[in-house]
Amino acid sequence: MENRERSIKNIIEDKLTGDQLKEFNRIYYGREDHCTLKLNDEAIRKSEEDGIQLAGYSFKAANEDTRPPRVVKLGLVQHSIVLTTDNPVHSQRNAIFYKVKNLIEIAASEGVNILCLQETWAMPFFLCTGEKEAWSEFAESATNGLSVLFLAELAKKHGMVIISPILEDDNGTWWNTAVVINEEGRILGKHRKNHLPSVGSFSETAYYSPGDLGHAVFDTKYGRIAVNICYGRHHALNWLMFGLNGAEVVFNPSATVAEFGESFWGIEARNAAVANGYFTCSINRVGTEEFTIKTEPGKSISRNFYGSSYVTAPNGCRTPSLSRVTDGILVAEVNLNLCRQVKDQWGFNMTSRLNEYAEELNQVLLQK
Amino acid sequence: MENRERSIKNIIEDKLTGDQLKEFNRIYYGREDHCTLKLNDEAIRKSEEDGIQLAGYSFKAANEDTRPPRVVKLGLVQHSIVLTTDNPVHSQRNAIFYKVKNLIEIAASEGVNILCLQETWAMPFFLCTGEKEAWSEFAESATNGLSVLFLAELAKKHGMVIISPILEDDNGTWWNTAVVINEEGRILGKHRKNHLPSVGSFSETAYYSPGDLGHAVFDTKYGRIAVNICYGRHHALNWLMFGLNGAEVVFNPSATVAEFGESFWGIEARNAAVANGYFTCSINRVGTEEFTIKTEPGKSISRNFYGSSYVTAPNGCRTPSLSRVTDGILVAEVNLNLCRQVKDQWGFNMTSRLNEYAEELNQVLLQK
Repeated sequence: MENRERSIKNIIEDKLTGDQLKEFNRIYYGREDHCTLKLNDEAIRKSEEDGIQLAGYSFKAANEDTRPPRVVKLGLVQHSIVLTTDNPVHSQRNAIFYKVKNLIEIAASEGVNILCLQETWAMPFFLCTGEKEAWSEFAESATNGLSVLFLAELAKKHGMVIISPILEDDNGTWWNTAVVINEEGRILGKHRKNHLPSVGSFSETAYYSPGDLGHAVFDTKYGRIAVNICYGRHHALNWLMFGLNGAEVVFNPSATVAEFGESFWGIEARNAAVANGYFTCSINRVGTEEFTIKTEPGKSISRNFYGSSYVTAPNGCRTPSLSRVTDGILVAEVNLNLCRQVKDQWGFNMTSRLNEYAEELNQVLLQK
Repeated sequence: MENRERSIKNIIEDKLTGDQLKEFNRIYYGREDHCTLKLNDEAIRKSEEDGIQLAGYSFKAANEDTRPPRVVKLGLVQHSIVLTTDNPVHSQRNAIFYKVKNLIEIAASEGVNILCLQETWAMPFFLCTGEKEAWSEFAESATNGLSVLFLAELAKKHGMVIISPILEDDNGTWWNTAVVINEEGRILGKHRKNHLPSVGSFSETAYYSPGDLGHAVFDTKYGRIAVNICYGRHHALNWLMFGLNGAEVVFNPSATVAEFGESFWGIEARNAAVANGYFTCSINRVGTEEFTIKTEPGKSISRNFYGSSYVTAPNGCRTPSLSRVTDGILVAEVNLNLCRQVKDQWGFNMTSRLNEYAEELNQVLLQK
């Protein structure tokens, strides 16, 4: 295997053993042991057959006197596109649907309660091409688009909450949106990406505006969840508001490439989990996507996404990353009671002095 | 060497070589090569003789047309106390002064321009004992206390800006304070710790109040600097305000122990550097400190600090950590022009939507 195809976990476990490995894990992952979840044989067999990495970890919480444990299984899915981007839109989309259906079925067989797909999962990430019209048929309605209809059925079938990040076409206006579908297949609501990159060829303001829906937290059967889409992970106030609004799990569906800060992929969502006392779930697509630039004959660009999806608990412990290159499902069994327990232990909320920051922020803004 | 005495760098470089080591470094430190600084022979010899770890790294920036490079050397000092805590106050303090003088002289011989000591460097960290009167002679004036007088002389002698985190006694009221002394030995100003822990035995509200001096940035000869003391590193808004006020380097002098989040020691200051486009310098004391609890005969407590001081650049690249157990000096040669270059590249400031957050924060606070 090429080094660039390997995760930190692969590299380390090749070479470190025993106490050295434990000490590395203690500092790097926050715990000596990964607390691996027992997975069922059929799911393992099916994943191996299909070239999917299936990994499971658990995060415990202390028993409480007045609250029962609130154990839920979170599912993160990362995948590559299937057909090359010169195929008809409907073929590309159907091929992705077919692949994702299989991934969701495997996750369901592991009892996943809340599942999140990657940013704009039903299409190649053409938002790095600078071109719009050529790709516009990938945009879809957040209420009755093909993705929503497709996932609503799976959500209902498996009693699973599903977060579907799509390119939304709202009556001719595009948004980068995550639709939250509940376990009965009903749409609970949606969130729109709050912060848009203009970094290298990822210049998304050409396609849509920054989100206009604030920082909604969705009260699902399994827990209070929110979605911070991709570039929003760089913004501490974005993470903060989801926390203040009561989130227990914040998903960060992304599409990001190594040259744009892979070294802090493991930093930002993890920092947010600790700072705000919730679980964070970081999801990034995998694979190389090639685009022919239609308005500039002969020109094409290629983008390589590095996967590495992972989960962080509010106490800062994290799972290993999924692969940098293959499709994968990460199952995290978490006890949501840990959120309050960690807040009680660390007191970051209690000591936040938010009133003073609101005032100080206003002063700084007035001076501009 | 015991594993617990080893840094991640020690552990990794024992076992990984060549391309594997490069790939690990790329993801973990943000760059394949540590860009080691050439240190002078005499400083190396003196450090080795005194059991001090001396390490140096550099961070480059692109050349610009209209600004010359602004290369400065930052110095981080971590150290243990010298005498046991049952010795007279003046003996304990003098012994620390003697040790720190040597550390500063070595840093000066490496051409350090801005140097920062650890939190309450001139005393054992008795703030974890719960006792006050027994230790009160360690508190001192921020204008003419022994620490300030001692460091002012060294600052002037070496033309060095020195940040001196002390336990301040302001006419009978204590504060956890960092005094900034300029290269002429004059006091430029001070900062007071904005967020206080009540975590385990570290319950600092028994000693002093949260800082009342906001988020000052000090415009020194060598660059615009600020200080975020210890527990303040858990607060994203604290880091943010220093950035909005123009800081190019933010020091985080600390006193922290492994059981309180060692796994995110490498996360928070690094996240802040990336989010706010400045350098961060994380400093933690080393060694075990034993305290006899004077009001409870027979009871004593012991605290072990894990060092691991490091520097992060605004692009997320970081130096390896200093040792977990020995005194150390970390010299980082940085080009401050990198701050604006990274902001231009990433656009986190441009896309911050601060006006909207100020409003949203006010709304949340009104609802409480």
